[in-house]
Amino acid sequence: MKTGFFNVLDVQSFIDRLRGFDHLPALQTPLDEAHGCVLAAPVVSPEDLPAADRSCMDGYAVRAADLFGTTEGNPAYLECTGTVSIERPADFSIAAGECAAIVTGALLPRGADAVVMVEHTQEMGAGTVEIRKSVAPHEHVMLRGEDAVQGQPALTAGTLLRAQEIGLLAALGVQTVHVHRRPRVGIFSTGDEVIPAHATPRPGQVRDVNSHALQAMARAAGAAVTCYGIVPDDEKALTAMLARTTAENDMVLLSGGSSVGTRDLTMAALDSLDGAAVINHGVAISPGKPLILASADGKGQRCAVWGLPGQVTSAQVVMFVLGIPFVHWLAGRRTPFDQSAWASRRAVLARNIASRQGREDYIRVRLHAEEDGRVTATPVTGKSGLLRTMLQAHGVVRIPAHSEGLDSGTQVDVLLFGGGY
Amino acid sequence: MKTGFFNVLDVQSFIDRLRGFDHLPALQTPLDEAHGCVLAAPVVSPEDLPAADRSCMDGYAVRAADLFGTTEGNPAYLECTGTVSIERPADFSIAAGECAAIVTGALLPRGADAVVMVEHTQEMGAGTVEIRKSVAPHEHVMLRGEDAVQGQPALTAGTLLRAQEIGLLAALGVQTVHVHRRPRVGIFSTGDEVIPAHATPRPGQVRDVNSHALQAMARAAGAAVTCYGIVPDDEKALTAMLARTTAENDMVLLSGGSSVGTRDLTMAALDSLDGAAVINHGVAISPGKPLILASADGKGQRCAVWGLPGQVTSAQVVMFVLGIPFVHWLAGRRTPFDQSAWASRRAVLARNIASRQGREDYIRVRLHAEEDGRVTATPVTGKSGLLRTMLQAHGVVRIPAHSEGLDSGTQVDVLLFGGGY
Repeated sequence: MKTGFFNVLDVQSFIDRLRGFDHLPALQTPLDEAHGCVLAAPVVSPEDLPAADRSCMDGYAVRAADLFGTTEGNPAYLECTGTVSIERPADFSIAAGECAAIVTGALLPRGADAVVMVEHTQEMGAGTVEIRKSVAPHEHVMLRGEDAVQGQPALTAGTLLRAQEIGLLAALGVQTVHVHRRPRVGIFSTGDEVIPAHATPRPGQVRDVNSHALQAMARAAGAAVTCYGIVPDDEKALTAMLARTTAENDMVLLSGGSSVGTRDLTMAALDSLDGAAVINHGVAISPGKPLILASADGKGQRCAVWGLPGQVTSAQVVMFVLGIPFVHWLAGRRTPFDQSAWASRRAVLARNIASRQGREDYIRVRLHAEEDGRVTATPVTGKSGLLRTMLQAHGVVRIPAHSEGLDSGTQVDVLLFGGGY
Repeated sequence: MKTGFFNVLDVQSFIDRLRGFDHLPALQTPLDEAHGCVLAAPVVSPEDLPAADRSCMDGYAVRAADLFGTTEGNPAYLECTGTVSIERPADFSIAAGECAAIVTGALLPRGADAVVMVEHTQEMGAGTVEIRKSVAPHEHVMLRGEDAVQGQPALTAGTLLRAQEIGLLAALGVQTVHVHRRPRVGIFSTGDEVIPAHATPRPGQVRDVNSHALQAMARAAGAAVTCYGIVPDDEKALTAMLARTTAENDMVLLSGGSSVGTRDLTMAALDSLDGAAVINHGVAISPGKPLILASADGKGQRCAVWGLPGQVTSAQVVMFVLGIPFVHWLAGRRTPFDQSAWASRRAVLARNIASRQGREDYIRVRLHAEEDGRVTATPVTGKSGLLRTMLQAHGVVRIPAHSEGLDSGTQVDVLLFGGGY
């Protein structure tokens, strides 16, 4: 490819480029393995759910018209003609003036159109039941098709399958679903000074942190992760590793040593990789400005190559703010970049935060539940390069590009890393 | 056991009983499999991290005292005696009036105690560098031991291992960690009318929803889940299944058909199970009041038996509010029941919510991002027993037991089911 441009993008434009990658193709997947996946096609309901009118309560199945005007002071008296059990439909029907004892979940007998809760009734003996409350037609009755109607979409394409959607599909007898497949993410680290975590560093060497931290983040986001180890600061080795990883993955995360040269090397290696194209070289975000995004010919579909900042804490913040949402995008989620839907916690800023205009700042904060019930967010500051700031932080506060900062006492939404505090 | 008491507990007392179960024992676990696990013992740092003073920036290693009073208008001139690369410590030291070019991450040469960013310098030729800014000692330097000190705890017992903690441990060369093991959760459904999801219901029968929905929730919470199928409404069969599942798991979730009899059967089956003791029979929570909690002799350690409400939506809400935090408790988290740390989203209530005093209400709500930027939360109402209320909801709003409800327009923290909206 030819890197004709070195453009620092604003965050929104960068996200627009990310949206240029396609959702991954769909696979037929067993229902119990599809939690967290996204439907690639609507699920048309094979039947009505409920399949017939069912009682929501324990009580008596009645004809609502029989109880018009019924009150505590003006009770009605109905003849109980039978009991409807849960496992078998009634073999009788309800005529005017009649009722049937019924349990929650049981099918309504023919003729009945509502249920009176047992609390508002009393058995009077000799088959007579006193009813002290009127009911509307269909009251305390789940109607046939209220959850799903045969032949109509029970769930639409793009639906994320949470526990409750899994439950609905089980109720409909759906055993496999057509969902976007899980993203394959390949990870490697670069840098002559980087050694594997199991090795003992000589002076000047550091252990590979990013492979482990990024792997944990990508896995938690639902990706199938492969770690490829460490590549020295050598263009040929880097190009070879890029060729291999982009062929085997949908997203490749490479993160440099912290030296200046690594970034140029990454660009050069992308330059010599067939079918690769650099999309941007820098994003107006802090931390994370040196972020490189490129696309490469994968096997059959484009692979997104992310050249993450070498600083391990910067790499983690970029992964949290942009990388994880992109994993979700590949997996078929429609609006993963919309932070207003992310897990967050409202808190009161405990200190002023200054920010430079023209870039989006993500300030790490530590949350603390105060005795008065408020939750405060204290910015975690520290030298870049240290791991402690990420360890102390529970999440980040976004300062928009047009803002010069936030005052102490401001209410902020802290985007949570997860895991509580 | 003998069920001497049928006590409806308030939620806090119920949580106190849950805390009576021990955290699970610890296992030595490979680092890359420990994400989301909780340390059962402190990790004592085997070395200093950083191992030596390192530069945070590209620039010049200096002696801060040489630059006292240095400004743009009053620059200092230092003699550059060498360059420090990332992979090899300097073989020279810095004397008064000297400096060395240095890259981010490289070790500080002896004699230097600070770094000046390259932006505030200029090469003047003949080995002279102009410096236009003073620095404090240790400025732009990661000091030896700032992240971890040899022989001191790098992380304390009870620490949840997020991506950043995994990263720290990798940096320290820690390859296995002593973490509480993942909870084993066994799930089965009960009820004569309940059939497997793959079967075709006759009139009156319903497919097993809970095994699938609860399985998804427990797995996402980090548990190892086994599903045991469906048990008919038969005390002996129920007791046999309880004996088997409690021997094989740390937590057993059984959920009834929706008939009244199921609850009594569960109590009777627990009665005839050796070593079992009912802890409560009812919680002042809505939905979820009929919740049963019992303990049973597991193999070597107590197993918690949860008799969930038969209503599938109630079962899911109880699982979200109490069951998942209990999974986390077993896994060693110290304060999983503290909702102030849960993922949430601040929203404006779009309608009044009424609530009965004396019980904690969890109202399902649907979130919506309004055009003016506010997020509104609309209560999702519907007949109990239908699945749709859970499908439409993004989370729940808690109404405390002492409250009679909340007014439209109130700011609420919506506890998020996860997965965005």
